[in-house]
Amino acid sequence: MSLDSLRAALRDFAAERDWDQFHSPRNLAAALSVEASEVLEHFQWLTDEQSQHLSRDVRRTVALELADVLLYLVRLADKLDTDLLGAAEEKLRINAVKYPANKSRGSAKKYTDL
Amino acid sequence: MSLDSLRAALRDFAAERDWDQFHSPRNLAAALSVEASEVLEHFQWLTDEQSQHLSRDVRRTVALELADVLLYLVRLADKLDTDLLGAAEEKLRINAVKYPANKSRGSAKKYTDL
Amino acid sequence: MSLDSLRAALRDFAAERDWDQFHSPRNLAAALSVEASEVLEHFQWLTDEQSQHLSRDVRRTVALELADVLLYLVRLADKLDTDLLGAAEEKLRINAVKYPANKSRGSAKKYTDL
Amino acid sequence: MSLDSLRAALRDFAAERDWDQFHSPRNLAAALSVEASEVLEHFQWLTDEQSQHLSRDVRRTVALELADVLLYLVRLADKLDTDLLGAAEEKLRINAVKYPANKSRGSAKKYTDL
Repeated sequence: MSLDSLRAALRDFAAERDWDQFHSPRNLAAALSVEASEVLEHFQWLTDEQSQHLSRDVRRTVALELADVLLYLVRLADKLDTDLLGAAEEKLRINAVKYPANKSRGSAKKYTDL
Repeated sequence: MSLDSLRAALRDFAAERDWDQFHSPRNLAAALSVEASEVLEHFQWLTDEQSQHLSRDVRRTVALELADVLLYLVRLADKLDTDLLGAAEEKLRINAVKYPANKSRGSAKKYTDL
Repeated sequence: MSLDSLRAALRDFAAERDWDQFHSPRNLAAALSVEASEVLEHFQWLTDEQSQHLSRDVRRTVALELADVLLYLVRLADKLDTDLLGAAEEKLRINAVKYPANKSRGSAKKYTDL
Repeated sequence: MSLDSLRAALRDFAAERDWDQFHSPRNLAAALSVEASEVLEHFQWLTDEQSQHLSRDVRRTVALELADVLLYLVRLADKLDTDLLGAAEEKLRINAVKYPANKSRGSAKKYTDL
């Protein structure tokens, strides 16, 4: 399955249930944020180390939460006529300029530069 | 570009900067949630109607925020060895059973059943 | 009960359970964000109008979610030695300068100025 | 300043600007969630250790972000006619039953029981 076919499947899913009325961009943006927090909920009390060694069961649960994020992300991008992968490519180019490898190597500047 | 090539590009990007040390699943989950909120920030005071008619400039800004969500989502899934599109397909199947079209049509039950 | 006594109660609660080890500012910040999203979850598919007329049961559920946000907020402020109400007063003063009443009246500029 | 006087100040602030029209519970819930994420943003790449030793400047910035969370929390509770401190007291009692001190001491069960 590609992102394109996922987008098409989500359109059909909503159409069959007459759910487009609920899928305004602002509703979808709220849902996207709520789903991303549900991912975080699984990690909130773990150390970095523990988060690297999840049990098989937890990994499966988290995988389905990540899927929820992807579903709303693709749906919202569709409603906004956004080319999600194209925007990701553009963002990669922007980041490559913003964080040149030779100046950013091993540096946490991006991260701790509050 | 596919999700697979995006995942590969993100691996290279982090490796070139020695940033894997920062990319624990729990850090990436926090970043994913923060980026999803940055999407929501653009919509928080808009009506549903307004959110359907964003200006060209705002749509471009939001597209890059959606890209950020996708980048962290793909990176986190990679770190957890999760097949993101496979999980999305599975979730679609789960949702199809949970919300049968003939019983869910036009119903906001999913939505208002707090 | 005042915020001061709530802060004291939360200190005792954590001490009795030896939970301070989990209450690093970064963990508490993640928990705060997750709890705020749980509040949003109740509203994500509602219209503005519907959100103003919650049933008694939903209001009670949401009240306890708001309480969770307050508990983590007070706990995090305590761990950072922050005077929460003092910071709120300061923020009110900042906002009063930023949004003068005579220029901001009825204007959604703050809100739609994306 | 108490939470009661903060609630009154926020009512006046909105009334003077005719902003009640934007302050539906669902809008306020979205804003609350966005502000909580802005707190998290400061911590997302820090280790637990680093998060305990913020610089004076960062602590001041974070204090104002915490204030934003409190402002929206108090405003939303007001719009829902919720007694915020009363709900917090009730939640403390619920948690005391749910996590008895003698059984929860030093245990991360709450935290790792995903």
